[in-house]
Amino acid sequence: MKSIRIALAQINTTVGDIEGNTGKIISYIKEAQDKGADIVAFPELAVTGYPPEDLLLKPQFINDNIKALKRIARHVDDIVSIVGFVDKDSDIYNAAAIIHQGEVKDVYHKIFLPNYGVFDEMRYFQEGDIPGLYRLGDIVFGVNICEDIWYPDGPSRVQALAGAEFLININASPYHIGKPLFRERMLSTRASDSTVIVAYLNTVGGQDELVFDGQSLVFNERGDLLSRGRAFEEDMIIVDLNLDAVFMTRLHDPRRRREALYLEESAIRFVEISSEYHRKVSKPSFKYTLSHHLDELEEIYTALVTGTRDYVRKNGFKKVLIGLSGGIDSSLVATIATDALGSDSVKGMFMPSAYTSKESYEDALELAKNLNIEIFEIPINDIFESYLKTLKPVFKDLSPDVAEENIQARIRGNLLMALSNKYGWLVLTTGNKSEMSVGYATLYGDMAGGFAIIKDVPKTMVYKLAQWRNNKEGRLLIPERVLWKEPSAELKPDQKDTDTLPPYEVLDPILKAYIEEDRSFDEIITHGCEIECTQRVINMIDKSEYKRRQAPPGIKITERAFGRDRRFPITNKYRSY
Amino acid sequence: MKSIRIALAQINTTVGDIEGNTGKIISYIKEAQDKGADIVAFPELAVTGYPPEDLLLKPQFINDNIKALKRIARHVDDIVSIVGFVDKDSDIYNAAAIIHQGEVKDVYHKIFLPNYGVFDEMRYFQEGDIPGLYRLGDIVFGVNICEDIWYPDGPSRVQALAGAEFLININASPYHIGKPLFRERMLSTRASDSTVIVAYLNTVGGQDELVFDGQSLVFNERGDLLSRGRAFEEDMIIVDLNLDAVFMTRLHDPRRRREALYLEESAIRFVEISSEYHRKVSKPSFKYTLSHHLDELEEIYTALVTGTRDYVRKNGFKKVLIGLSGGIDSSLVATIATDALGSDSVKGMFMPSAYTSKESYEDALELAKNLNIEIFEIPINDIFESYLKTLKPVFKDLSPDVAEENIQARIRGNLLMALSNKYGWLVLTTGNKSEMSVGYATLYGDMAGGFAIIKDVPKTMVYKLAQWRNNKEGRLLIPERVLWKEPSAELKPDQKDTDTLPPYEVLDPILKAYIEEDRSFDEIITHGCEIECTQRVINMIDKSEYKRRQAPPGIKITERAFGRDRRFPITNKYRSY
Repeated sequence: MKSIRIALAQINTTVGDIEGNTGKIISYIKEAQDKGADIVAFPELAVTGYPPEDLLLKPQFINDNIKALKRIARHVDDIVSIVGFVDKDSDIYNAAAIIHQGEVKDVYHKIFLPNYGVFDEMRYFQEGDIPGLYRLGDIVFGVNICEDIWYPDGPSRVQALAGAEFLININASPYHIGKPLFRERMLSTRASDSTVIVAYLNTVGGQDELVFDGQSLVFNERGDLLSRGRAFEEDMIIVDLNLDAVFMTRLHDPRRRREALYLEESAIRFVEISSEYHRKVSKPSFKYTLSHHLDELEEIYTALVTGTRDYVRKNGFKKVLIGLSGGIDSSLVATIATDALGSDSVKGMFMPSAYTSKESYEDALELAKNLNIEIFEIPINDIFESYLKTLKPVFKDLSPDVAEENIQARIRGNLLMALSNKYGWLVLTTGNKSEMSVGYATLYGDMAGGFAIIKDVPKTMVYKLAQWRNNKEGRLLIPERVLWKEPSAELKPDQKDTDTLPPYEVLDPILKAYIEEDRSFDEIITHGCEIECTQRVINMIDKSEYKRRQAPPGIKITERAFGRDRRFPITNKYRSY
Repeated sequence: MKSIRIALAQINTTVGDIEGNTGKIISYIKEAQDKGADIVAFPELAVTGYPPEDLLLKPQFINDNIKALKRIARHVDDIVSIVGFVDKDSDIYNAAAIIHQGEVKDVYHKIFLPNYGVFDEMRYFQEGDIPGLYRLGDIVFGVNICEDIWYPDGPSRVQALAGAEFLININASPYHIGKPLFRERMLSTRASDSTVIVAYLNTVGGQDELVFDGQSLVFNERGDLLSRGRAFEEDMIIVDLNLDAVFMTRLHDPRRRREALYLEESAIRFVEISSEYHRKVSKPSFKYTLSHHLDELEEIYTALVTGTRDYVRKNGFKKVLIGLSGGIDSSLVATIATDALGSDSVKGMFMPSAYTSKESYEDALELAKNLNIEIFEIPINDIFESYLKTLKPVFKDLSPDVAEENIQARIRGNLLMALSNKYGWLVLTTGNKSEMSVGYATLYGDMAGGFAIIKDVPKTMVYKLAQWRNNKEGRLLIPERVLWKEPSAELKPDQKDTDTLPPYEVLDPILKAYIEEDRSFDEIITHGCEIECTQRVINMIDKSEYKRRQAPPGIKITERAFGRDRRFPITNKYRSY
């Protein structure tokens, strides 16, 4: 029986950590070899981590990555290793090295470079041209990179028509809601369209704003899913591919035979990796890992936990500090942080003012108790009074307004940063996407901190995630009252979010339509928020770009997050109404 | 004599202000017509402003810009108007409309889309393919856009070989030091290489991080400069082109005749704008505007003034507020702001602590007097004491460190923002590029504010600019002592910048080598900063990326500024030593 064993090493790399990434790659090569794999693959740009951004403009960085690849090659003997790295000649390429017996047998250059959303690959890389087709003993396969497989007529198609029995597609594909399912549907179609086995390998882990979800996949030539790697965790999936089945299915596929006629010879390069190679597995195993799909809320929550853990750890922090207000946002953030880092690594700080309610105090304390995290209490009244006294000569007798509200928020920001500076704790901010959108947050106040873990989570989803987490625990982590009491910034007497904003159930769909979908004004007007209300919301969004520009990064979970995903001018007189 | 009069309208547009930009274009068309011009040109994306960034992803925005173009067309009668706008079919293009007699006669699509440095054009636009060549009565000319003329074999070359007597190249070319001269050299070579008149039109004014310097140019077919528009100001230059001279020079140019043989017919489209057109000017004038080149320091200073004025005005602010420390940075910022906005629009705030020297006090006050700006004095001691008292239980008996220093800086940030919120003044921050590079600044402290006007100015250049400005005034604006006293943050007793940093004369070249030139570690080590010192500096740069990510935008004046120009990961374990 014609069969080959492939291993997809879904590893968590760190950008710039060439040495660490290289060590990890080498150790997985050894493990794959021990497990009898003929081929082991690593993610897109595994050597450098993804995305390296402007590190790619440093010649020394490129050279260090080439040296690392050579070091990896020395550890490859009777296995084929496919490793993502940055290739260079007179230019640089997003590349995959095909390594065997200590030698780099070929280098594939990514052909389709994404340059939209969070991607800037045309800023750095030259495009590849002719895809390679690799012969290893009696088998033939193709390798390509990420975006390459999203094009129905791209290199995957060419490689399959030219005879590839299977394709290995290496990725660094960032997570957003809905993407895992969309990706599976597309890959299944690619496999069945071209009667080819598709092995899709994704990287895993957090890198600044991005989280990679892993969930590597293998589809057979009929588009059936054979194996799925773990979500948001390192994993190596091993699959024995049945190549006889590919041949048989092709014999029965008249469509494919006809189409292959149109392939030009110049569209592909044939590369002999080894004519002598003997496949290791004569008796293939057909029991594969098939990690389960996460439900939507579990998936989002896990993305946030992963993004938080990796940001904190990869940046060398041991502990985090969170301002706990007794509200839903800070409660969810503390819960996520505790799941990511453990109770000992999470510190809470409650900073009451004259406007802080008894309920807030009780809820903050109960949350800390439930999560088993330490909480400090630092009242801000004395400091606030000293500001008011000092400012009296310049504020004169003007009545209190947003200036006094913001002073309080900024005192809290200063106190959090003081502890951060004193003890080396990373401050996590607690603003959600709804607030970030309309600027309902104080710059240098509640926006002060290093990482904003729920900044891409709309308020209505904040509630859902909190509820889901409580349900999962089977008891209350986030106190029940936090889930139903009315949201308030508590910066002046009897303040409610709805004094300034439409209810979140009305607001959130407007924000999605305007920010994520670029809908026109007429399309956005909705029941519960008519012309004047929609104008006000859009105006708030447009006017707070300056705040977002100074916000800490956070984890992308929607199709369009703030940050590198949405690049807006601050100076901008466009009004869509 | 065969001659034609062209007008280059070097206008200051605002991003998103489609209505305002359109009004301005229409009024300049009228003025050009009144002045007898046959052709009037406007900058790249004049209708939308440049760069519109992700506004380009909004279909409504594209449609509004098309409507505006049609409105402009209705105002064009016996003149040819060339207007930069966003064209659309099934995709969008960075385009130039060629309008005559109320009709859009042709649309040129930019062929080379810059996608490096501050540019992201491949994120948005489809590339154009075949350039057009335009016939107007008995003359033939080409139009192209910005980057198109930087390619020696690009559309400019094709248009010239195919018969264009002159080229109109419309731009939005951001300023950086050295660019005006580099650009002039290149354009002169393009003209003489292809024996063609080159009319280069640049936009002018500030847009967030970018400043466009204008300085539109016309070169004759021998590469001699005929006219130069004003630097950093709106202008319309009018030139009568001598087309007989072009013909004669070509007759004497054997190179050109030979090269034209190789031009393929399919490389160009011929478009008839009007076969009936009669050139207006029978007796050409040959006296042209030739605004002088600015000296380097004047040029930089003027860029900063322009960028400041436009950021403040275009964002609807009337006044600005600056924390004055008595140091060189805040002194220079206040001087630039006063030049940009006038004395009445600039407010200073002096916020002394126990560590503030008498000299600082005197220098801040003297500066304010010299600039004739209002200055407030708000001491921070009482507030600082209340923080220390409040924090005592959590700080315990740990000895004072950077935490206490930063609290002071953040109190100042809070006070500045309090006045900003109370009175609607924009806070200008005062950090320079040297500080931003190594993170010698307090996040939410001295980094708090809306616009950081000297964030791309290295400290050594801060001194030069201050000296230059004093010299220009012929008296001291910035007090003399500020120019020679040793820099200090005054956040603890006897603090000096050199406690933490190498002297700025040593530091600045290292920063340039690492940040702007991407030099390797070995290349950076320099006299006065050996291995250990260079490691420390590079480490400080790498480690402060998180601060820069939350910094306000500022004006780009070097070849690589922080911000959209340099995109670095925060999570980054790469060490180049």
